Amino acid sequence: MLRKKDKVAMTPPMGWNSWDCWAATVNEKQLLENADYMAAHLKPFGWEYVVCDIQWSEPLAGTGEREYRNFARLTLDEYGRQMPAENRFPSAAGGAGFAPIAEKIHSMGLKFGIHIMRGIPRQAVHEHLPVLGTDVTADQVALFHSISCWNGDMYGLDPQKPESQAYYDSIFQLYAAWGVDFVKVDDICNTNMYPNNPYSAEKEIEMIRRAIDRSGRDMVLSLSPGPAVIEKAWHMEKHANMWRVTDDFWDKWELLKAMFERCEVWQKHVSPGCWPDCDMLPLGRIGMGFHSGRKTNFTRAEQVTMMTLWSIFRSPLMMGGNLPDCDNWTLSLLTNAEVLHLLKHSHDACQLVRDDTQAVWTSVDDDEGRYLALFNLCDAQAEVSCPLSELELSSAWVRDLWQKKDLGAVQGSVSALLAPHGAALLKLTRAH
Amino acid sequence: MLRKKDKVAMTPPMGWNSWDCWAATVNEKQLLENADYMAAHLKPFGWEYVVCDIQWSEPLAGTGEREYRNFARLTLDEYGRQMPAENRFPSAAGGAGFAPIAEKIHSMGLKFGIHIMRGIPRQAVHEHLPVLGTDVTADQVALFHSISCWNGDMYGLDPQKPESQAYYDSIFQLYAAWGVDFVKVDDICNTNMYPNNPYSAEKEIEMIRRAIDRSGRDMVLSLSPGPAVIEKAWHMEKHANMWRVTDDFWDKWELLKAMFERCEVWQKHVSPGCWPDCDMLPLGRIGMGFHSGRKTNFTRAEQVTMMTLWSIFRSPLMMGGNLPDCDNWTLSLLTNAEVLHLLKHSHDACQLVRDDTQAVWTSVDDDEGRYLALFNLCDAQAEVSCPLSELELSSAWVRDLWQKKDLGAVQGSVSALLAPHGAALLKLTRAH
Amino acid sequence: MLRKKDKVAMTPPMGWNSWDCWAATVNEKQLLENADYMAAHLKPFGWEYVVCDIQWSEPLAGTGEREYRNFARLTLDEYGRQMPAENRFPSAAGGAGFAPIAEKIHSMGLKFGIHIMRGIPRQAVHEHLPVLGTDVTADQVALFHSISCWNGDMYGLDPQKPESQAYYDSIFQLYAAWGVDFVKVDDICNTNMYPNNPYSAEKEIEMIRRAIDRSGRDMVLSLSPGPAVIEKAWHMEKHANMWRVTDDFWDKWELLKAMFERCEVWQKHVSPGCWPDCDMLPLGRIGMGFHSGRKTNFTRAEQVTMMTLWSIFRSPLMMGGNLPDCDNWTLSLLTNAEVLHLLKHSHDACQLVRDDTQAVWTSVDDDEGRYLALFNLCDAQAEVSCPLSELELSSAWVRDLWQKKDLGAVQGSVSALLAPHGAALLKLTRAH
Amino acid sequence: MLRKKDKVAMTPPMGWNSWDCWAATVNEKQLLENADYMAAHLKPFGWEYVVCDIQWSEPLAGTGEREYRNFARLTLDEYGRQMPAENRFPSAAGGAGFAPIAEKIHSMGLKFGIHIMRGIPRQAVHEHLPVLGTDVTADQVALFHSISCWNGDMYGLDPQKPESQAYYDSIFQLYAAWGVDFVKVDDICNTNMYPNNPYSAEKEIEMIRRAIDRSGRDMVLSLSPGPAVIEKAWHMEKHANMWRVTDDFWDKWELLKAMFERCEVWQKHVSPGCWPDCDMLPLGRIGMGFHSGRKTNFTRAEQVTMMTLWSIFRSPLMMGGNLPDCDNWTLSLLTNAEVLHLLKHSHDACQLVRDDTQAVWTSVDDDEGRYLALFNLCDAQAEVSCPLSELELSSAWVRDLWQKKDLGAVQGSVSALLAPHGAALLKLTRAH
Repeated sequence: MLRKKDKVAMTPPMGWNSWDCWAATVNEKQLLENADYMAAHLKPFGWEYVVCDIQWSEPLAGTGEREYRNFARLTLDEYGRQMPAENRFPSAAGGAGFAPIAEKIHSMGLKFGIHIMRGIPRQAVHEHLPVLGTDVTADQVALFHSISCWNGDMYGLDPQKPESQAYYDSIFQLYAAWGVDFVKVDDICNTNMYPNNPYSAEKEIEMIRRAIDRSGRDMVLSLSPGPAVIEKAWHMEKHANMWRVTDDFWDKWELLKAMFERCEVWQKHVSPGCWPDCDMLPLGRIGMGFHSGRKTNFTRAEQVTMMTLWSIFRSPLMMGGNLPDCDNWTLSLLTNAEVLHLLKHSHDACQLVRDDTQAVWTSVDDDEGRYLALFNLCDAQAEVSCPLSELELSSAWVRDLWQKKDLGAVQGSVSALLAPHGAALLKLTRAH
Repeated sequence: MLRKKDKVAMTPPMGWNSWDCWAATVNEKQLLENADYMAAHLKPFGWEYVVCDIQWSEPLAGTGEREYRNFARLTLDEYGRQMPAENRFPSAAGGAGFAPIAEKIHSMGLKFGIHIMRGIPRQAVHEHLPVLGTDVTADQVALFHSISCWNGDMYGLDPQKPESQAYYDSIFQLYAAWGVDFVKVDDICNTNMYPNNPYSAEKEIEMIRRAIDRSGRDMVLSLSPGPAVIEKAWHMEKHANMWRVTDDFWDKWELLKAMFERCEVWQKHVSPGCWPDCDMLPLGRIGMGFHSGRKTNFTRAEQVTMMTLWSIFRSPLMMGGNLPDCDNWTLSLLTNAEVLHLLKHSHDACQLVRDDTQAVWTSVDDDEGRYLALFNLCDAQAEVSCPLSELELSSAWVRDLWQKKDLGAVQGSVSALLAPHGAALLKLTRAH
Repeated sequence: MLRKKDKVAMTPPMGWNSWDCWAATVNEKQLLENADYMAAHLKPFGWEYVVCDIQWSEPLAGTGEREYRNFARLTLDEYGRQMPAENRFPSAAGGAGFAPIAEKIHSMGLKFGIHIMRGIPRQAVHEHLPVLGTDVTADQVALFHSISCWNGDMYGLDPQKPESQAYYDSIFQLYAAWGVDFVKVDDICNTNMYPNNPYSAEKEIEMIRRAIDRSGRDMVLSLSPGPAVIEKAWHMEKHANMWRVTDDFWDKWELLKAMFERCEVWQKHVSPGCWPDCDMLPLGRIGMGFHSGRKTNFTRAEQVTMMTLWSIFRSPLMMGGNLPDCDNWTLSLLTNAEVLHLLKHSHDACQLVRDDTQAVWTSVDDDEGRYLALFNLCDAQAEVSCPLSELELSSAWVRDLWQKKDLGAVQGSVSALLAPHGAALLKLTRAH
Repeated sequence: MLRKKDKVAMTPPMGWNSWDCWAATVNEKQLLENADYMAAHLKPFGWEYVVCDIQWSEPLAGTGEREYRNFARLTLDEYGRQMPAENRFPSAAGGAGFAPIAEKIHSMGLKFGIHIMRGIPRQAVHEHLPVLGTDVTADQVALFHSISCWNGDMYGLDPQKPESQAYYDSIFQLYAAWGVDFVKVDDICNTNMYPNNPYSAEKEIEMIRRAIDRSGRDMVLSLSPGPAVIEKAWHMEKHANMWRVTDDFWDKWELLKAMFERCEVWQKHVSPGCWPDCDMLPLGRIGMGFHSGRKTNFTRAEQVTMMTLWSIFRSPLMMGGNLPDCDNWTLSLLTNAEVLHLLKHSHDACQLVRDDTQAVWTSVDDDEGRYLALFNLCDAQAEVSCPLSELELSSAWVRDLWQKKDLGAVQGSVSALLAPHGAALLKLTRAH
């Protein structure tokens, strides 16, 4: 039974997010350059969202010693709503907000997304600013103890006060007016983070869901950071479109290897409109927002492993590297039509094997074909194989999706000799 | 994609289990009396399993101060396999085991089940008995530290020794020869119980699955006790047919109320062949195996609530009370054809609301009808209602399944005035 | 080896604290009335501290729905230091702070104490107020994530910034100038409260210790709330004079009974200058600061039990009830010279027995006498006894300290028939 | 107040234990060779205990793949009491037990110790052997779920059965008859190991204490393994003479560095008769009982650090290396009279500083001198210093105890340039 909110994301969302490359420093020029590149090179393959990540209302974001400047002055409107910092997003001048940028991106045939922290700015609270459409001030709806442990911008909102909903309504009304298509809400997903804290982020998720519905505009709702707790899978499936199943993911093998355990746990919770999220793809050129940029630390084999796991599991795909810096190799990973067909049209993915040395996943295509992903988790080259009986087959015709070539008919079992940390992604059809 | 093992339990298993009424003392006469009653009164409604619970190999079971006599002498064959104690199960004489009882039950058109603890008897280990088909003895496959914390009969088996699989194969070969249709394996389901113990029951589940497959006989695999951990849902779905989602359930309101939280967590993991298990139904006359018997402590309203929750969630239904003692009221709970139709033919059950005072569940019938279960969790009478918009309906024709009568057309929302701890189970179809 | 800081509290501090009776609403008149009463009736028995508890800088403290008004405007000086709210403490007018009150209390031969929360006011931080003697502002030394989970006034201070020490120095310099003799620092003692928070209160304890030492004035340092973690006993012994071993204590038997477990754990950590603190004595008339006052809910037997445990364990004694409302019974509990002699002159207290029904403690007097405290933890009258051999005695002369009478010589064991939840406190000397 | 049990260990016990070198394989010849060496070279410095560690009743101990052979046949007497395996301890023949070995060791002027696991042999339980002096059998006093997670020999004893005490009495009566002076009881000290297990080892400690007292012979009671939980410090101080504050200690820097944290936590719990135990000294030649021997992996600097920490903290000193293999360097560590004077005559040791790079401890001698231990926890050479003001001194005369030479008078602070992982141990007296 499809919910209304599911219909905005019937397949895993695909796009670009500014965090991995530009962190808190992203600006209008960078957003538009990435949009231009996407329109030119990626759009035909299904990539569509351009997402501006955290602290777009902080004029000096990213200029301090640490990730965020604490107690910095944010750009707020008279109702305590964050507005884009005009020094970074010049088109926002005159109260236009993100509307001009959204319009440009829409005109390219793409969609526009923003990041927010749950809650209300501490600055609005300590200045006792009014909440739009109510007769209360921000300090009357904020919870003094409901904070993020990694960012000091906000207080959580008290779900027992109706004016808290009004605040959320007021910001999503603004986002709808701007033309926002995707909202990544942060500090909200790992609801077990605060064991000694009476606060539960569940109620904020519900308020945000309601605010989106009331806004009258379709928006994908993405929850962060992880790990989400699986006991609440049903709640996220009910209210959100995607939610992080891990802590922040970066270009380290240990993190990639650990993702197999996360996918194992979440494998039964993937369905249209409901996408457990393995986090962004740190490919190509990244890290420029953190003092100095770098090429991804992943080997090519590891990059293939990542793309294969994300695709067969059906995680959202959000490119983290700066798109205009893509080289041909990176571009080839993002534009493999057969792999992206798997992302969009496969179902019932499940793990067949996982131990310290290897993993095997399988899934089914709408066209009745079967997929098989073989992963080598060792530090050395190794052969990974899977008996066809595990798929209840005796023989099959095999095609390699990354190599884009047919390997021919096999009997009994399918094997691949894999590079260290490497993977093969195969499509199996009835033997000719 | 249905697995082979799923096909033995396409709908939630229904039967009777000896524990709630006879505990560890059950005997042949009691088993057969319950089978007779089931054949006569319940079989037409889908009830079919007659299950003999724990310690059937212990001649003096249930005669000590505590639940189990520790370090008691069990009846074993020469290969360390438990055999029915002949003083309690006379037809087992001469090495016949449970075959004669199984045959009688089969002749009634019913199916026969038994309980086992995971592992190998400590007695076999300390006597160094041989493992059938191998040249090792029991002490060579047992793990000295892999024990149950509530029953002292067994040691776990070392999954790294191939002869451990041989032991499991040897017992399931015996059960197949007896004609066993259902095996409840105990001390195996809550795999998080032993945080400081290197042992994991997962490997024993896998050995048991393999032993059943090799036995050549269909058997339902039921895992106990709970709470199962939801991170391992995929593993239980892969290997078992039902698994307990709670600790032992008895006739106390606190336990029944707590079950709503369990069902909430597990709601997405119910599918043909894979049945999260709310445990037995302590209805009618129970407790005779624990010093003295009693009528269930549940009020009638609570009994309806239990049957409603188990049915809409699609838990297995295993009657715990002694069947020949059923009164008309109890029998009516077990033989409501419309409720049992829901158990067998509904799908996509989900919780709409749960707080400290009420819960609402809904599901869909194969015939496109919708079900709505309204629960009053308060200690006083209360009205519980649900807006039809939650079901994406504007009006509906309503039938009460427990009252077996049509309530007529409703607009806007459905309500019921409910007894303390009571429930209503409604079927909604398009308004005429 | 006595530390310098130990010398300000060679015996357990005794005094009155405003919290139990006046909560956050206490005012100058109430402080002085309690001081007057103490000077007249309690001073000869060793009572000396008059302590003003939380939120004395909040003009409207206690007038909201909850315990504290969140994001209220506090009275601060230009350096972000809290000053007494002048509407509540009129003598503070003109920047005099607590000096006039301290002076009055000193003139009665008593000592004056105040409560503070660790850290720096959020208000000072969000207003970017300067830190005295530095060129930084409050926002540059505060940690955005270091907060109390029960009071929203403050941010913790960053121990890696030297200006954080400067802020603490600035407030203790002020307190020294006022004539403060005792500081209860709150939100600092239970250092395990924030398992997911990088913050540790240990560093703030060290900064506060240093600030007191630098102030040039002797002040008792009292840490709150509990439970303190015993792994850090050595740290509190090194830096503080008293620290709470429990969460807030009130007039409920369950809390009093639970204190026996706390004293058991902490029994080896009591020494001059270092006093594990069982919290205030909710005796007499209390609760007026929380909507409505009441007489203590403790029975007389429970009051004796509390006074006996606190005294033999050598907890600080801080009266919580409003002193001018003391009746004769309450006064008698606070002025038993023999019991208070035990408090001041006994040592090596240890628990001999504790189970669900009774507890027995013993200690030694400087004069070589032995103390024996017998506690009845049952809900019914019961006899509690102790073999003299446990004290390595064969006979003894026994005096009852609460009854103030000699019970005579005993052989073998000492017994007392005790009221429900009651206690006897006995002094044993060599049999005459 | 000294307890009776304290008097058998007024200073930290010093001796040799067979585990580090011979593991479960130790035999009579090895015991006596070590005793001979101790008598000849170490006795004048206070070394006196020769302790036979685990599984002396197992004829084939140490011959399996793992540390212990599970479900092996132990040598038991008719009452289920373990007896030395005669193939390993020939003098035990004819039921003599350890008496002949004890006698030889006593004749050298030394003392004899043995290891036991808490509880009763599983073998005695499954064979239903009688408990001496009672009419019950072993299976009636054993708890089926009270087991060690690392050794399969025993079941714990049910403290609610009086015959459990009788069993302990029966074994300690035997040990007293043999002439045992020291008992290391294993699987009993870390009472928090079994969070889901109703069993608490506390009651077994109490039964053992009582059995020793009843045996009529002085025996040091040593509890293992750790980490002991500090909440129970009072209980161990009451009943035992030494208890392990860590898990097993071996010759790895990480473990040695971690010991500083353990000593920090336990620093206030060291007193005559009560010795928190840092575990054995893996010095010289070790590991021969584990497939192959080796020289200690500790550098000389690390060996000095270990000896310094153990000595100033006043841990028991139990040499782990095979004594006859000692080289001069190792012998010099064990026979430094000034360091061992500190072990025996210092008091009030406390940590002054600890961070990731260094640690500083101080203590006081009976002769009023002060000790100062400086530790370099870095992987590179570093200077560690301590202001004399921390000791409330302005100047001092300094002697280096390991170098055995006077360093002369110092003012202001004391420093030492230390090797990686190295230490200095200094005695400070009034400047001449």
